[in-house]
Amino acid sequence: MNPLINNLNSKLAITIRQVKLFDQAMQHTSFVNEHRRRKLASNERLEFLGDAVLEIIVSEFLYQQYPNLAEGELSRMRAQLVREPSLARLARQLNLPDYLKLGRGELKSGGLERDSILSDALEALLGALYLDQGLEVVRDFLYRELLKDHVNWLKLINKDYKTLLQERLQQQGAVLIEYHELAKSGPAHHQQFTMGLYINQELVAEGTGLSKKKAEMAAAQAALAKLD
Amino acid sequence: MNPLINNLNSKLAITIRQVKLFDQAMQHTSFVNEHRRRKLASNERLEFLGDAVLEIIVSEFLYQQYPNLAEGELSRMRAQLVREPSLARLARQLNLPDYLKLGRGELKSGGLERDSILSDALEALLGALYLDQGLEVVRDFLYRELLKDHVNWLKLINKDYKTLLQERLQQQGAVLIEYHELAKSGPAHHQQFTMGLYINQELVAEGTGLSKKKAEMAAAQAALAKLD
Repeated sequence: MNPLINNLNSKLAITIRQVKLFDQAMQHTSFVNEHRRRKLASNERLEFLGDAVLEIIVSEFLYQQYPNLAEGELSRMRAQLVREPSLARLARQLNLPDYLKLGRGELKSGGLERDSILSDALEALLGALYLDQGLEVVRDFLYRELLKDHVNWLKLINKDYKTLLQERLQQQGAVLIEYHELAKSGPAHHQQFTMGLYINQELVAEGTGLSKKKAEMAAAQAALAKLD
Repeated sequence: MNPLINNLNSKLAITIRQVKLFDQAMQHTSFVNEHRRRKLASNERLEFLGDAVLEIIVSEFLYQQYPNLAEGELSRMRAQLVREPSLARLARQLNLPDYLKLGRGELKSGGLERDSILSDALEALLGALYLDQGLEVVRDFLYRELLKDHVNWLKLINKDYKTLLQERLQQQGAVLIEYHELAKSGPAHHQQFTMGLYINQELVAEGTGLSKKKAEMAAAQAALAKLD
């Protein structure tokens, strides 16, 4: 039996009907390209659909959960929840690397650990689940796995950037990473901070946010983007 | 009685329950800011939600309608259907400028004709309709107003770019606008064209697409973006 289907059936107390959709969701383009004769479909179309399914569920959840938050803050939270590192984390939590089929080249170069591949596969899985079971089932699923505990989830994801940067830089030897305040603006109850990220006392990136911590996260994220 | 509610009730054969949501959908920030004492809510939070509602309905429609299109093509069609000029066109078709409330400054400067304001109001309306009536009703609504005839809709929207550019340039006197092929790539059944847009024989912008026409549209769009 297909272990992903077993996993989902028992986790969600459902009976999946169209097993093929879930097979397709786990087929990366690199795998499909390597087996052209079998005329398989890659998971990209399902990812296209799943992306929109994820978007509406997260949007509605945040809209209802935070009746007093302005649109800008809702958008920011949504963006954090649905961005690659967050979705890749969820994909790992669901053991998708065990089910995912990649081409040999992709596999060798560590594709199963790549956030972009994992995040796409997760979206494809959501697309398959939506087609097979409807919006309610996907909503319950995402509520349990991602949204119920979204505050801690966001903390973890945000921490990841600073940790990630530190780990990344320390691979090259000892470095000194510091964050210093560069600017502060806005009224006291809605203050905006800009933090500078210094590597060995040299300004490398800046980040802005509604707390120093958020600004530091943004700076670390910017620095990581520069390194990539 | 609220004319927007009457309009929707009769168009959709429904009975709207939460009239306040629809009032809110028609309140632009500029109006809310001018009437601070009344503590009104602007349409921005509903727009946040409506954007996601629109996205899933359009995505699922295209996914089902075009079983053989690759993800890239689906994304491109979706982007065209949900972008500002398209949504503003739909907003006008639904007479939203008659219902929309703007601040005096915004009104004077022609806000009721601005694509961005109309497109945001339309998304807010979709958000309100979703909360009041559920996904099915919004899906029927969008199917009838936008998706059923999406091929012609896309043609109209796309024609707009070239026409718009021509009108825009001719305001400044006589100009010569030409499109010439710059490059061609890919296999015969899936050829990609790059067209150059020349104004008075000078190359101003380029566009790429799966037909010469599509590439020309893209080039006109790029030229308009440069002018803005």
